[in-house]
Amino acid sequence: MIGIFDSGVGGLTVARAIMKQIPGYDIVYFGDTAHTPYGSKSAETVIGYTINNIEFLLSRGAQLIVIACNTASSVLTTPILKRFSVPIFEVITPAVELAVQASRNLSFGIIGTRATVTSGIYEKKIIENQPQARVYSIACPLLVPLVEEGWLDKAETAMIVKKYLKPLKSRQIDTLILGCTHYPLLKKVIQRKIGRRVQLIDSSISVSKSIKAFLGANSEIDRRLEKNGQLKLFVSDVTDQFKKIAAMTLKTKITFECVSG
Amino acid sequence: MIGIFDSGVGGLTVARAIMKQIPGYDIVYFGDTAHTPYGSKSAETVIGYTINNIEFLLSRGAQLIVIACNTASSVLTTPILKRFSVPIFEVITPAVELAVQASRNLSFGIIGTRATVTSGIYEKKIIENQPQARVYSIACPLLVPLVEEGWLDKAETAMIVKKYLKPLKSRQIDTLILGCTHYPLLKKVIQRKIGRRVQLIDSSISVSKSIKAFLGANSEIDRRLEKNGQLKLFVSDVTDQFKKIAAMTLKTKITFECVSG
Repeated sequence: MIGIFDSGVGGLTVARAIMKQIPGYDIVYFGDTAHTPYGSKSAETVIGYTINNIEFLLSRGAQLIVIACNTASSVLTTPILKRFSVPIFEVITPAVELAVQASRNLSFGIIGTRATVTSGIYEKKIIENQPQARVYSIACPLLVPLVEEGWLDKAETAMIVKKYLKPLKSRQIDTLILGCTHYPLLKKVIQRKIGRRVQLIDSSISVSKSIKAFLGANSEIDRRLEKNGQLKLFVSDVTDQFKKIAAMTLKTKITFECVSG
Repeated sequence: MIGIFDSGVGGLTVARAIMKQIPGYDIVYFGDTAHTPYGSKSAETVIGYTINNIEFLLSRGAQLIVIACNTASSVLTTPILKRFSVPIFEVITPAVELAVQASRNLSFGIIGTRATVTSGIYEKKIIENQPQARVYSIACPLLVPLVEEGWLDKAETAMIVKKYLKPLKSRQIDTLILGCTHYPLLKKVIQRKIGRRVQLIDSSISVSKSIKAFLGANSEIDRRLEKNGQLKLFVSDVTDQFKKIAAMTLKTKITFECVSG
Protein backbone atom coordinates (compact mmCIF):
# COMPACT_ATOMS: atom_id res chain seq x y z
CA MET A 1 0.00 0.00 0.00
CA ILE A 2 0.94 3.68 -0.14
CA GLY A 3 2.41 4.97 3.14
CA ILE A 4 1.98 8.66 4.00
CA PHE A 5 3.17 10.56 7.04
CA ASP A 6 3.05 14.04 8.48
CA SER A 7 3.58 15.63 11.89
CA GLY A 8 -0.19 15.87 12.33
CA VAL A 9 -3.29 16.50 10.29
CA GLY A 10 -1.71 18.55 7.47
CA GLY A 11 -0.64 15.52 5.48
CA LEU A 12 -4.26 14.43 5.22
CA THR A 13 -4.58 17.05 2.46
CA VAL A 14 -2.02 14.90 0.58
CA ALA A 15 -3.98 11.70 1.35
CA ARG A 16 -7.10 13.45 0.05
CA ALA A 17 -5.35 14.59 -3.14
CA ILE A 18 -3.95 11.08 -3.79
CA MET A 19 -7.39 9.51 -3.26
CA LYS A 20 -8.76 11.94 -5.84
CA GLN A 21 -5.90 11.59 -8.35
CA ILE A 22 -5.58 7.78 -8.19
CA PRO A 23 -8.74 6.45 -6.51
CA GLY A 24 -8.83 2.98 -4.98
CA TYR A 25 -5.21 2.59 -3.78
CA ASP A 26 -4.86 1.35 -0.20
CA ILE A 27 -3.29 3.98 2.04
CA VAL A 28 -1.67 3.77 5.47
CA TYR A 29 -1.33 7.18 7.11
CA PHE A 30 0.74 8.06 10.16
CA GLY A 31 0.24 11.39 11.97
CA ASP A 32 3.08 11.97 14.46
CA THR A 33 0.80 13.93 16.77
CA ALA A 34 2.93 13.22 19.85
CA HIS A 35 5.70 15.34 18.31
CA THR A 36 3.66 17.90 16.36
CA PRO A 37 4.52 20.54 15.19
CA TYR A 38 7.75 19.86 13.26
CA GLY A 39 8.05 23.34 11.71
CA SER A 40 9.43 25.06 14.79
CA LYS A 41 11.97 22.32 15.64
CA SER A 42 15.57 21.82 14.58
CA ALA A 43 16.62 19.87 11.47
CA GLU A 44 18.34 17.15 13.56
CA THR A 45 15.21 16.51 15.63
CA VAL A 46 12.95 16.42 12.56
CA ILE A 47 15.30 14.00 10.75
CA GLY A 48 15.13 11.63 13.73
CA TYR A 49 11.32 11.70 13.75
CA THR A 50 11.20 11.22 9.97
CA ILE A 51 13.35 8.09 9.98
CA ASN A 52 11.15 6.59 12.72
CA ASN A 53 8.01 7.40 10.73
CA ILE A 54 9.33 5.81 7.54
CA GLU A 55 10.31 2.69 9.47
CA PHE A 56 6.85 2.52 11.04
CA LEU A 57 5.12 2.75 7.64
CA LEU A 58 7.40 0.05 6.20
CA SER A 59 6.54 -2.20 9.15
CA ARG A 60 2.87 -1.72 8.22
CA GLY A 61 3.42 -2.91 4.65
CA ALA A 62 4.03 0.36 2.79
CA GLN A 63 5.67 -0.23 -0.64
CA LEU A 64 5.88 3.47 -1.54
CA ILE A 65 6.35 6.33 0.89
CA VAL A 66 5.06 9.89 0.69
CA ILE A 67 6.61 12.47 3.01
CA ALA A 68 3.50 14.65 3.25
CA CYS A 69 5.25 17.34 5.25
CA ASN A 70 7.30 20.17 3.79
CA THR A 71 9.40 20.55 6.94
CA ALA A 72 10.44 16.88 6.90
CA SER A 73 10.95 17.04 3.10
CA SER A 74 13.14 20.13 3.45
CA VAL A 75 15.63 18.65 5.93
CA LEU A 76 16.09 15.23 4.34
CA THR A 77 19.25 14.53 2.43
CA THR A 78 19.84 12.02 -0.37
CA PRO A 79 22.02 9.71 1.82
CA ILE A 80 19.13 9.36 4.28
CA LEU A 81 16.63 8.59 1.53
CA LYS A 82 19.00 6.00 0.01
CA ARG A 83 18.88 3.94 3.21
CA PHE A 84 15.44 2.73 2.18
CA SER A 85 14.72 0.38 -0.71
CA VAL A 86 11.22 1.62 -1.61
CA PRO A 87 10.44 4.75 -3.68
CA ILE A 88 10.11 7.83 -1.46
CA PHE A 89 8.30 10.97 -2.62
CA GLU A 90 8.79 14.33 -0.99
CA VAL A 91 6.46 17.29 -1.58
CA ILE A 92 8.96 19.96 -2.62
CA THR A 93 10.31 18.85 -6.03
CA PRO A 94 6.84 18.33 -7.60
CA ALA A 95 5.65 21.72 -6.27
CA VAL A 96 8.71 23.46 -7.75
CA GLU A 97 8.17 21.78 -11.15
CA LEU A 98 4.51 22.80 -11.24
CA ALA A 99 5.33 26.35 -10.12
CA VAL A 100 8.01 26.81 -12.77
CA GLN A 101 5.58 25.61 -15.48
CA ALA A 102 2.84 27.89 -14.18
CA SER A 103 4.79 31.14 -13.78
CA ARG A 104 5.12 33.66 -16.60
CA ASN A 105 7.33 36.26 -14.91
CA LEU A 106 9.43 33.76 -12.86
CA SER A 107 8.80 35.75 -9.70
CA PHE A 108 7.86 33.31 -6.95
CA GLY A 109 6.60 33.58 -3.41
CA ILE A 110 7.06 30.76 -0.89
CA ILE A 111 5.25 30.44 2.42
CA GLY A 112 6.10 27.72 4.90
CA THR A 113 7.11 26.89 8.45
CA ARG A 114 10.21 28.47 9.97
CA ALA A 115 12.18 25.22 9.45
CA THR A 116 11.21 24.96 5.77
CA VAL A 117 12.02 28.60 5.04
CA THR A 118 15.32 28.43 6.96
CA SER A 119 16.38 25.39 4.93
CA GLY A 120 16.27 27.48 1.71
CA ILE A 121 15.31 24.35 -0.23
CA TYR A 122 12.64 25.96 -2.42
CA GLU A 123 14.95 28.79 -3.55
CA LYS A 124 17.69 26.27 -4.30
CA LYS A 125 15.46 24.01 -6.39
CA ILE A 126 13.80 26.90 -8.25
CA ILE A 127 17.13 28.52 -9.11
CA GLU A 128 18.55 25.15 -10.25
CA ASN A 129 15.57 24.90 -12.61
CA GLN A 130 15.38 28.58 -13.65
CA PRO A 131 18.58 30.52 -12.84
CA GLN A 132 16.97 33.87 -13.64
CA ALA A 133 14.05 33.36 -11.22
CA ARG A 134 13.39 35.62 -8.23
CA VAL A 135 12.18 33.92 -5.04
CA TYR A 136 10.76 35.57 -1.91
CA SER A 137 10.16 33.40 1.14
CA ILE A 138 8.16 34.13 4.28
CA ALA A 139 7.94 31.93 7.38
CA CYS A 140 4.36 31.77 8.70
CA PRO A 141 4.72 29.74 11.93
CA LEU A 142 1.30 30.55 13.37
CA LEU A 143 -0.67 29.12 10.44
CA VAL A 144 -0.14 25.51 11.53
CA PRO A 145 -1.57 26.05 15.05
CA LEU A 146 -4.47 28.02 13.53
CA VAL A 147 -5.30 25.10 11.21
CA GLU A 148 -4.83 22.56 14.00
CA GLU A 149 -7.39 24.60 15.98
CA GLY A 150 -9.81 24.53 13.04
CA TRP A 151 -9.84 28.36 12.82
CA LEU A 152 -10.12 28.26 9.03
CA ASP A 153 -12.73 30.99 8.51
CA LYS A 154 -12.06 33.23 11.52
CA ALA A 155 -11.36 36.95 11.21
CA GLU A 156 -8.23 36.57 13.38
CA THR A 157 -6.83 34.00 10.94
CA ALA A 158 -7.49 36.34 8.00
CA MET A 159 -5.66 39.15 9.84
CA ILE A 160 -2.65 36.97 10.54
CA VAL A 161 -2.56 35.69 6.92
CA LYS A 162 -2.70 39.29 5.70
CA LYS A 163 0.16 40.28 8.02
CA TYR A 164 2.35 37.41 6.83
CA LEU A 165 1.64 38.03 3.12
CA LYS A 166 2.16 41.79 3.26
CA PRO A 167 5.90 41.75 2.31
CA LEU A 168 5.02 39.58 -0.74
CA LYS A 169 2.33 41.96 -2.03
CA SER A 170 4.86 44.49 -3.33
CA ARG A 171 7.07 41.88 -5.00
CA GLN A 172 5.06 41.34 -8.22
CA ILE A 173 5.03 37.59 -7.73
CA ASP A 174 2.67 35.71 -10.03
CA THR A 175 3.00 32.31 -8.33
CA LEU A 176 2.79 31.47 -4.63
CA ILE A 177 3.84 28.03 -3.39
CA LEU A 178 1.93 26.80 -0.33
CA GLY A 179 5.02 25.22 1.18
CA CYS A 180 3.26 23.43 4.03
CA THR A 181 0.64 20.72 3.74
CA HIS A 182 -1.56 22.47 6.30
CA TYR A 183 -1.99 25.52 4.07
CA PRO A 184 -4.38 24.06 1.46
CA LEU A 185 -6.97 24.21 4.26
CA LEU A 186 -6.46 28.01 4.24
CA LYS A 187 -6.43 28.31 0.44
CA LYS A 188 -9.48 30.58 0.26
CA VAL A 189 -8.21 33.18 2.70
CA ILE A 190 -4.68 33.04 1.27
CA GLN A 191 -6.04 33.63 -2.26
CA ARG A 192 -8.19 36.51 -1.02
CA LYS A 193 -5.27 38.21 0.76
CA ILE A 194 -2.59 37.71 -1.94
CA GLY A 195 -4.99 38.70 -4.75
CA ARG A 196 -6.64 36.83 -7.62
CA ARG A 197 -3.81 37.37 -10.09
CA VAL A 198 -1.41 35.19 -8.11
CA GLN A 199 -1.61 31.46 -8.80
CA LEU A 200 -1.40 29.22 -5.74
CA ILE A 201 0.62 26.01 -6.01
CA ASP A 202 -0.75 23.37 -3.67
CA SER A 203 2.01 20.86 -2.85
CA SER A 204 -0.58 18.17 -2.03
CA ILE A 205 -1.88 18.26 -5.61
CA SER A 206 1.55 18.42 -7.28
CA VAL A 207 2.91 15.42 -5.34
CA SER A 208 -0.17 13.32 -6.11
CA LYS A 209 0.18 14.08 -9.85
CA SER A 210 3.82 13.12 -9.64
CA ILE A 211 2.93 9.78 -7.97
CA LYS A 212 0.32 9.08 -10.66
CA ALA A 213 2.87 9.66 -13.42
CA PHE A 214 5.46 7.48 -11.62
CA LEU A 215 3.05 4.56 -11.23
CA GLY A 216 1.99 4.88 -14.86
CA ALA A 217 5.65 4.49 -15.87
CA ASN A 218 6.56 1.78 -13.32
CA SER A 219 3.96 -0.94 -13.65
CA GLU A 220 5.95 -3.52 -11.63
CA ILE A 221 5.73 -1.22 -8.58
CA ASP A 222 2.14 -0.32 -9.33
CA ARG A 223 1.20 -4.04 -9.37
CA ARG A 224 2.59 -4.45 -5.84
CA LEU A 225 0.22 -1.81 -4.41
CA GLU A 226 -3.13 -3.14 -3.21
CA LYS A 227 -6.25 -1.41 -4.45
CA ASN A 228 -9.17 -2.07 -2.11
CA GLY A 229 -9.85 1.62 -1.42
CA GLN A 230 -8.80 1.22 2.23
CA LEU A 231 -7.47 4.06 4.38
CA LYS A 232 -5.80 3.14 7.68
CA LEU A 233 -4.95 5.99 10.04
CA PHE A 234 -2.37 5.78 12.81
CA VAL A 235 -1.37 8.52 15.22
CA SER A 236 1.22 8.72 18.00
CA ASP A 237 -1.17 10.63 20.26
CA VAL A 238 -4.98 10.64 20.24
CA THR A 239 -6.86 13.88 20.84
CA ASP A 240 -10.44 14.92 20.08
CA GLN A 241 -9.01 17.85 18.17
CA PHE A 242 -7.21 15.55 15.73
CA LYS A 243 -10.39 13.55 15.15
CA LYS A 244 -12.31 16.75 14.43
CA ILE A 245 -9.82 18.24 11.95
CA ALA A 246 -9.18 14.87 10.28
CA ALA A 247 -12.92 14.37 9.69
CA MET A 248 -13.16 17.93 8.34
CA THR A 249 -10.21 17.44 5.96
CA LEU A 250 -11.29 14.04 4.62
CA LYS A 251 -14.99 15.00 4.75
CA THR A 252 -15.86 11.60 6.18
CA LYS A 253 -16.15 9.85 9.53
CA ILE A 254 -12.84 8.26 10.41
CA THR A 255 -11.38 5.76 12.85
CA PHE A 256 -7.75 5.51 13.81
CA GLU A 257 -5.36 3.62 15.97
CA CYS A 258 -2.82 4.99 18.43
CA VAL A 259 0.75 3.68 18.42
CA SER A 260 3.52 4.71 20.78
CA GLY A 261 5.28 7.87 19.55
CA MET B 1 19.70 22.34 43.45
CA ILE B 2 16.15 23.19 42.44
CA GLY B 3 15.00 21.36 39.29
CA ILE B 4 12.35 22.98 37.11
CA PHE B 5 10.80 21.73 33.89
CA ASP B 6 8.25 22.78 31.33
CA SER B 7 7.35 21.80 27.77
CA GLY B 8 9.19 24.88 26.50
CA VAL B 9 9.84 28.45 27.47
CA GLY B 10 6.74 29.02 29.64
CA GLY B 11 8.31 27.56 32.77
CA LEU B 12 11.02 30.21 32.62
CA THR B 13 8.43 32.56 34.14
CA VAL B 14 8.52 30.20 37.15
CA ALA B 15 12.32 30.19 37.18
CA ARG B 16 12.23 33.99 37.09
CA ALA B 17 9.70 34.15 39.95
CA ILE B 18 11.76 31.73 42.09
CA MET B 19 14.96 33.73 41.45
CA LYS B 20 13.09 36.81 42.64
CA GLN B 21 11.38 35.19 45.64
CA ILE B 22 14.43 33.25 46.94
CA PRO B 23 17.51 34.70 45.24
CA GLY B 24 20.74 32.74 45.08
CA TYR B 25 19.46 29.15 44.87
CA ASP B 26 21.04 27.04 42.13
CA ILE B 27 18.53 26.07 39.47
CA VAL B 28 18.59 23.44 36.75
CA TYR B 29 15.94 24.01 34.11
CA PHE B 30 14.77 21.57 31.45
CA GLY B 31 12.64 22.75 28.50
CA ASP B 32 11.23 19.75 26.63
CA THR B 33 11.24 21.65 23.35
CA ALA B 34 11.40 18.47 21.23
CA HIS B 35 7.87 17.63 22.45
CA THR B 36 6.41 21.10 22.90
CA PRO B 37 3.53 21.94 23.19
CA TYR B 38 2.00 19.66 25.85
CA GLY B 39 -1.37 21.44 26.08
CA SER B 40 -2.87 19.94 22.94
CA LYS B 41 -1.74 16.38 23.69
CA SER B 42 -3.40 13.53 25.59
CA ALA B 43 -2.95 12.94 29.33
CA GLU B 44 -1.15 9.59 28.75
CA THR B 45 1.42 11.19 26.46
CA VAL B 46 2.02 14.12 28.82
CA ILE B 47 2.44 11.78 31.82
CA GLY B 48 5.12 9.86 29.90
CA TYR B 49 7.04 13.04 29.08
CA THR B 50 6.71 14.30 32.66
CA ILE B 51 8.20 11.16 34.22
CA ASN B 52 11.15 11.37 31.80
CA ASN B 53 11.66 15.04 32.67
CA ILE B 54 11.66 14.41 36.43
CA GLU B 55 14.16 11.57 35.99
CA PHE B 56 16.39 13.81 33.90
CA LEU B 57 16.40 16.56 36.56
CA LEU B 58 17.15 14.03 39.32
CA SER B 59 20.08 12.72 37.25
CA ARG B 60 21.38 16.32 37.17
CA GLY B 61 21.34 16.60 40.95
CA ALA B 62 17.92 18.17 41.63
CA GLN B 63 16.85 17.78 45.28
CA LEU B 64 13.49 19.51 44.82
CA ILE B 65 11.38 19.45 41.65
CA VAL B 66 9.04 22.13 40.30
CA ILE B 67 6.59 21.12 37.59
CA ALA B 68 6.45 24.54 35.95
CA CYS B 69 3.72 23.51 33.53
CA ASN B 70 0.00 23.54 34.28
CA THR B 71 -0.74 20.85 31.71
CA ALA B 72 1.76 18.42 33.27
CA SER B 73 0.58 19.41 36.77
CA SER B 74 -3.06 18.79 35.81
CA VAL B 75 -2.60 15.22 34.61
CA LEU B 76 -0.32 13.95 37.37
CA THR B 77 -1.77 11.67 40.01
CA THR B 78 -0.58 11.11 43.58
CA PRO B 79 0.68 7.53 42.86
CA ILE B 80 2.97 8.93 40.14
CA LEU B 81 4.33 11.65 42.42
CA LYS B 82 4.94 9.11 45.22
CA ARG B 83 7.39 7.19 43.01
CA PHE B 84 9.93 9.91 43.66
CA SER B 85 11.65 10.53 46.98
CA VAL B 86 12.24 14.30 46.63
CA PRO B 87 9.62 17.02 47.24
CA ILE B 88 7.70 17.81 44.04
CA PHE B 89 5.79 21.07 43.59
CA GLU B 90 3.08 21.51 41.00
CA VAL B 91 1.70 24.91 40.02
CA ILE B 92 -2.03 24.33 40.51
CA THR B 93 -2.52 23.97 44.28
CA PRO B 94 -0.64 27.20 45.20
CA ALA B 95 -2.57 29.15 42.53
CA VAL B 96 -5.88 27.88 43.89
CA GLU B 97 -4.92 28.82 47.47
CA LEU B 98 -3.90 32.32 46.42
CA ALA B 99 -7.04 32.77 44.31
CA VAL B 100 -9.37 31.69 47.12
CA GLN B 101 -7.69 34.14 49.50
CA ALA B 102 -7.92 36.95 46.95
CA SER B 103 -11.53 36.55 45.82
CA ARG B 104 -14.39 38.36 47.52
CA ASN B 105 -17.35 37.02 45.53
CA LEU B 106 -15.91 33.50 44.98
CA SER B 107 -16.57 33.72 41.27
CA PHE B 108 -13.47 32.50 39.43
CA GLY B 109 -12.31 32.41 35.85
CA ILE B 110 -9.67 29.94 34.68
CA ILE B 111 -7.78 30.13 31.40
CA GLY B 112 -5.44 27.37 30.30
CA THR B 113 -4.51 24.91 27.57
CA ARG B 114 -7.11 22.48 26.27
CA ALA B 115 -5.55 19.64 28.32
CA THR B 116 -5.58 21.64 31.57
CA VAL B 117 -9.19 22.78 31.10
CA THR B 118 -10.36 19.29 30.08
CA SER B 119 -8.80 17.83 33.24
CA GLY B 120 -11.17 19.94 35.40
CA ILE B 121 -8.45 20.08 38.08
CA TYR B 122 -8.87 23.78 38.94
CA GLU B 123 -12.66 23.48 39.44
CA LYS B 124 -12.15 20.38 41.57
CA LYS B 125 -9.55 22.01 43.83
CA ILE B 126 -11.47 25.29 44.16
CA ILE B 127 -14.74 23.52 45.03
CA GLU B 128 -12.92 21.29 47.58
CA ASN B 129 -11.67 24.50 49.21
CA GLN B 130 -14.83 26.62 48.77
CA PRO B 131 -17.91 24.48 48.01
CA GLN B 132 -20.06 27.52 47.19
CA ALA B 133 -17.62 28.90 44.59
CA ARG B 134 -18.50 29.33 40.93
CA VAL B 135 -15.80 28.49 38.39
CA TYR B 136 -15.79 29.25 34.66
CA SER B 137 -13.03 27.75 32.52
CA ILE B 138 -11.95 28.60 29.00
CA ALA B 139 -9.35 26.76 26.92
CA CYS B 140 -7.09 29.20 25.03
CA PRO B 141 -4.93 26.88 22.90
CA LEU B 142 -3.52 29.55 20.57
CA LEU B 143 -1.93 31.62 23.34
CA VAL B 144 1.02 29.25 23.76
CA PRO B 145 2.03 29.40 20.07
CA LEU B 146 1.58 33.20 20.15
CA VAL B 147 3.95 33.45 23.13
CA GLU B 148 6.42 30.98 21.60
CA GLU B 149 6.44 33.28 18.53
CA GLY B 150 7.13 36.30 20.75
CA TRP B 151 3.94 38.04 19.55
CA LEU B 152 3.36 39.59 22.97
CA ASP B 153 2.31 43.10 21.91
CA LYS B 154 0.75 42.42 18.52
CA ALA B 155 -2.76 43.57 17.61
CA GLU B 156 -3.62 40.04 16.43
CA THR B 157 -2.72 38.64 19.85
CA ALA B 158 -4.93 41.24 21.57
CA MET B 159 -7.82 40.25 19.27
CA ILE B 160 -7.42 36.57 20.05
CA VAL B 161 -7.16 37.24 23.81
CA LYS B 162 -10.34 39.32 23.60
CA LYS B 163 -12.16 36.56 21.73
CA TYR B 164 -11.14 33.93 24.30
CA LEU B 165 -12.06 36.10 27.30
CA LYS B 166 -15.44 37.21 25.93
CA PRO B 167 -17.52 34.44 27.60
CA LEU B 168 -15.90 35.33 30.97
CA LYS B 169 -16.76 39.04 30.71
CA SER B 170 -20.46 38.47 31.52
CA ARG B 171 -19.78 36.12 34.45
CA GLN B 172 -18.97 38.71 37.13
CA ILE B 173 -15.72 36.96 38.02
CA ASP B 174 -13.43 38.94 40.31
CA THR B 175 -10.42 36.61 40.04
CA LEU B 176 -8.84 35.10 36.94
CA ILE B 177 -6.26 32.33 37.25
CA LEU B 178 -3.61 32.32 34.52
CA GLY B 179 -3.57 28.53 34.36
CA CYS B 180 -0.57 28.22 32.04
CA THR B 181 2.98 29.33 32.74
CA HIS B 182 3.20 31.00 29.31
CA TYR B 183 0.41 33.45 30.17
CA PRO B 184 2.31 35.74 32.58
CA LEU B 185 4.10 36.97 29.44
CA LEU B 186 0.68 38.16 28.19
CA LYS B 187 -0.40 39.63 31.53
CA LYS B 188 -0.74 43.20 30.25
CA VAL B 189 -3.04 42.38 27.37
CA ILE B 190 -5.06 39.90 29.46
CA GLN B 191 -5.57 42.54 32.18
CA ARG B 192 -6.62 45.09 29.57
CA LYS B 193 -9.14 42.77 27.95
CA ILE B 194 -10.68 41.28 31.13
CA GLY B 195 -10.85 44.70 32.86
CA ARG B 196 -9.05 46.31 35.80
CA ARG B 197 -11.48 45.05 38.43
CA VAL B 198 -10.49 41.44 37.91
CA GLN B 199 -7.42 40.25 39.84
CA LEU B 200 -5.03 38.04 37.90
CA ILE B 201 -3.46 35.08 39.70
CA ASP B 202 -0.07 34.25 38.25
CA SER B 203 0.76 30.61 38.97
CA SER B 204 4.49 31.32 38.64
CA ILE B 205 4.33 33.70 41.61
CA SER B 206 2.09 31.51 43.79
CA VAL B 207 4.28 28.43 43.37
CA SER B 208 7.45 30.37 44.19
CA LYS B 209 5.86 31.73 47.40
CA SER B 210 4.83 28.21 48.30
CA ILE B 211 8.41 26.93 47.79
CA LYS B 212 9.77 29.77 49.93
CA ALA B 213 7.38 28.87 52.78
CA PHE B 214 8.23 25.16 52.45
CA LEU B 215 11.99 25.79 52.63
CA GLY B 216 11.49 28.07 55.64
CA ALA B 217 9.72 25.22 57.45
CA ASN B 218 12.04 22.42 56.27
CA SER B 219 15.58 23.53 57.01
CA GLU B 220 17.13 20.06 56.51
CA ILE B 221 15.96 20.13 52.87
CA ASP B 222 16.91 23.78 52.50
CA ARG B 223 20.47 22.98 53.66
CA ARG B 224 20.84 20.39 50.89
CA LEU B 225 20.17 22.99 48.16
CA GLU B 226 23.24 24.76 46.83
CA LYS B 227 23.18 28.54 46.70
CA ASN B 228 25.70 29.85 44.19
CA GLY B 229 23.15 31.72 42.12
CA GLN B 230 23.70 29.39 39.14
CA LEU B 231 21.10 28.74 36.45
CA LYS B 232 21.71 25.80 34.10
CA LEU B 233 19.40 25.45 31.12
CA PHE B 234 18.84 22.23 29.20
CA VAL B 235 16.54 21.70 26.24
CA SER B 236 15.62 18.64 24.19
CA ASP B 237 15.73 20.64 20.94
CA VAL B 238 17.68 23.80 20.17
CA THR B 239 16.09 26.52 18.06
CA ASP B 240 16.90 30.20 17.63
CA GLN B 241 13.32 30.95 18.62
CA PHE B 242 13.81 29.35 22.06
CA LYS B 243 16.99 31.37 22.64
CA LYS B 244 15.16 34.57 21.73
CA ILE B 245 12.14 34.02 23.97
CA ALA B 246 14.27 32.67 26.83
CA ALA B 247 16.46 35.77 26.77
CA MET B 248 13.35 37.96 26.68
CA THR B 249 11.75 36.17 29.64
CA LEU B 250 14.84 36.09 31.83
CA LYS B 251 15.99 39.51 30.60
CA THR B 252 19.56 38.27 30.36
CA LYS B 253 21.86 36.57 27.89
CA ILE B 254 21.67 32.83 28.35
CA THR B 255 23.49 29.69 27.32
CA PHE B 256 22.03 26.22 27.28
CA GLU B 257 22.81 22.64 26.48
CA CYS B 258 20.88 20.25 24.28
CA VAL B 259 20.12 16.72 25.51
CA SER B 260 18.32 14.04 23.53
CA GLY B 261 14.55 14.33 23.94
